[in-house]
Amino acid sequence: MPLTPSWVESANDADCPFPLNNLPYGVFTTNSLEPRCGVAIGDRILDLQAAEEAGVIAIAEDPVFDVPYWNDVMDLGPEAWGALRARLQELLAEGSAEQATVAPMLILMAEARMELPIVVTEFTDFYAGKHHAMNVGSMFRDPENALPPNWLHIPIGYNGRASTVVVSGTDIHRPNGQTKAPDADAPGFGPCKRLDFELEMGAIVGGTSEMGQPITVQQADDMIFGYVLLNDWSARDIQAWEYQPLGPFQAKAFATSISPWIVTKAALEPFRTSTPERERDLLPYLQEPGPMLYDIALSVTLAPEGRDPTTIAETNYDQMYYSAAQQLAHHASSGCAMNSGDLIGSGTVSGPQKTERGSLLELSWGGKDPITLSTGEVRSFLEDGDTLTLSGHCQGDGFTIGFGSCTGTVLPAKTFP
Amino acid sequence: MPLTPSWVESANDADCPFPLNNLPYGVFTTNSLEPRCGVAIGDRILDLQAAEEAGVIAIAEDPVFDVPYWNDVMDLGPEAWGALRARLQELLAEGSAEQATVAPMLILMAEARMELPIVVTEFTDFYAGKHHAMNVGSMFRDPENALPPNWLHIPIGYNGRASTVVVSGTDIHRPNGQTKAPDADAPGFGPCKRLDFELEMGAIVGGTSEMGQPITVQQADDMIFGYVLLNDWSARDIQAWEYQPLGPFQAKAFATSISPWIVTKAALEPFRTSTPERERDLLPYLQEPGPMLYDIALSVTLAPEGRDPTTIAETNYDQMYYSAAQQLAHHASSGCAMNSGDLIGSGTVSGPQKTERGSLLELSWGGKDPITLSTGEVRSFLEDGDTLTLSGHCQGDGFTIGFGSCTGTVLPAKTFP
Repeated sequence: MPLTPSWVESANDADCPFPLNNLPYGVFTTNSLEPRCGVAIGDRILDLQAAEEAGVIAIAEDPVFDVPYWNDVMDLGPEAWGALRARLQELLAEGSAEQATVAPMLILMAEARMELPIVVTEFTDFYAGKHHAMNVGSMFRDPENALPPNWLHIPIGYNGRASTVVVSGTDIHRPNGQTKAPDADAPGFGPCKRLDFELEMGAIVGGTSEMGQPITVQQADDMIFGYVLLNDWSARDIQAWEYQPLGPFQAKAFATSISPWIVTKAALEPFRTSTPERERDLLPYLQEPGPMLYDIALSVTLAPEGRDPTTIAETNYDQMYYSAAQQLAHHASSGCAMNSGDLIGSGTVSGPQKTERGSLLELSWGGKDPITLSTGEVRSFLEDGDTLTLSGHCQGDGFTIGFGSCTGTVLPAKTFP
Repeated sequence: MPLTPSWVESANDADCPFPLNNLPYGVFTTNSLEPRCGVAIGDRILDLQAAEEAGVIAIAEDPVFDVPYWNDVMDLGPEAWGALRARLQELLAEGSAEQATVAPMLILMAEARMELPIVVTEFTDFYAGKHHAMNVGSMFRDPENALPPNWLHIPIGYNGRASTVVVSGTDIHRPNGQTKAPDADAPGFGPCKRLDFELEMGAIVGGTSEMGQPITVQQADDMIFGYVLLNDWSARDIQAWEYQPLGPFQAKAFATSISPWIVTKAALEPFRTSTPERERDLLPYLQEPGPMLYDIALSVTLAPEGRDPTTIAETNYDQMYYSAAQQLAHHASSGCAMNSGDLIGSGTVSGPQKTERGSLLELSWGGKDPITLSTGEVRSFLEDGDTLTLSGHCQGDGFTIGFGSCTGTVLPAKTFP
């Protein structure tokens, strides 16, 4: 599939993350506009509230863009999603008869501030990157037996915290928590000393599954509205002390950042790729009817306060062992009801090479092998003032499907009131 | 504190769970009324939407009872909660000047159906019963070393699933899931074979804590709106295979039942009791400024389909090692934002005696020692058609603060579409 040209000229550059082929969905505000839904095209955002009010877009009987979140659209399901995308392509395509009507509804992206695109109903995080699980297992379990016994059979996940999912650009306070050094007699409480990021993709669920009712992998894939970049900020020292036997809790509860633009499944369609060969056959309820991963190039930069960023990792979402559709099918398998606005973290994306590791835990091998930044500074974990940025894109033939970035700066821990 | 008499005569019986001293909050519907907030008094429910519309109750500038959930009231904070309770006591007290106005707003409880009293924003479950943790640890860890190393220091918790929190009376489909027998080569998928209940209390959070900002135990206690009975349905065979290393997931995700009436902290005030002596000093951020547990007698019955119920456990909430206030303070300690509608499960309440165990896992000692019901039937875990009911009350001097009951019937597992 080649670039589809738009009358918004900036959208036609081969490097532009937001060509007509992409059309990602977000929520934005400006100095004069209240928060509202928009779609990115080139260096502009089409104001969908204005477009709906003007009657240029009508995908449901009642308005869906009178609220500053995408959940209402997500509730409408795949047919409406397809109709919206088709209409947007029509409006924004080169030669559109409606250019004069639509042009005044475009906002300069540089003048907009992005907000969370959805009301996050619940957040679930998985552990589906095999290289990541092997690396972590080698550090904390046994290099000869790094994967947990269930890992090749279950997309292992845990429920995270929705209340602290924030949009890219939100500063992150270093968490406080209980930690205990291996040789200490008792734990202490204070700011985390091993603050980390995790490079993930987030899948956004549209539609509902009924309580008690399992769904197939195909149904699960049909229920995915789109994808974002996701940083699962992690406090490794808090995690080490708390996670047995009930899993990560406060170590992950303080913040999760997502990129502001939801890249739809339709935009990603040309980049579908298969999960890898299975070492053990999956149970039938987890078998995919077709490719459900995506070829998405991912990178991570770290910039100390006031310094230039260094690229510290580059990898690809195609490294995952389980797709989001498999994860969602597993999530619903017990009869767990899924809803529009549920956010599914992929788990840390790491590739086989050292430079492809999606966390500082792996990059610095638990702090034993600190990384050196281009500025000369050294990092095992994140320092206050550090800015961590995830980026991602799919490379088409003459065009790019960009996710934009997911960034956050670490602030010092807060104290008790 | 003695019974406070009401002009609603049924509220004055010493055995009535809902005297004027209680005034628990729920959401109800009838054949002629849409779902709405109500307060229980004797065998009646006061229709708060009607009371607010009539101007009999006004606790905020805008209406708060125009919606069928308590979250808006919970958002108002303790001062408004106190004002509402005082006004309800005034309206319903013996000798009230407003009896004639209020009487027509009373609905017979027998004609009402109860719904979830709140929009559950997020659900967190703890593991704070020491006898429970000792029992489980003895079965699955080591009887000599039953408690995890962090247990005496941290109220261990994990994030659960809010989408499947249901009100008492909702049938529960047996979950499907992956399980693996210890000697099996690979896991299988199908209906859970070791379905269990967990007897818990649920604390309901009112108000918000800011992301990044820890709160004190006193602030946490101030943020608790009230308590309900909670059954954390559990699939032990699914749990055993999935829970390492990230904790319980699908084993707990399929259903959590709560009782319909929120018993407020104010009603429980006379029954405050202290957490037990500490074997290890708690870190300062977890130390309680006063008693924050409650003396609540709890019982569990099990009724096979079409048979009479048998009481299978009796215990007391005062057995917990950590209070809900401590759990909430720990929950927010990392900077995890807490919101009105968050539901905090206490963890299984078990006492020291065999008859005080709050789960079948403990009562049947992992299935090795099945229990015999009064009907002669034997149970290690729950069978399809079984009805499980939790009950709870505080015993005052001549009055009772009742929680009502939390019940659910097990239906067969559903199959894939």
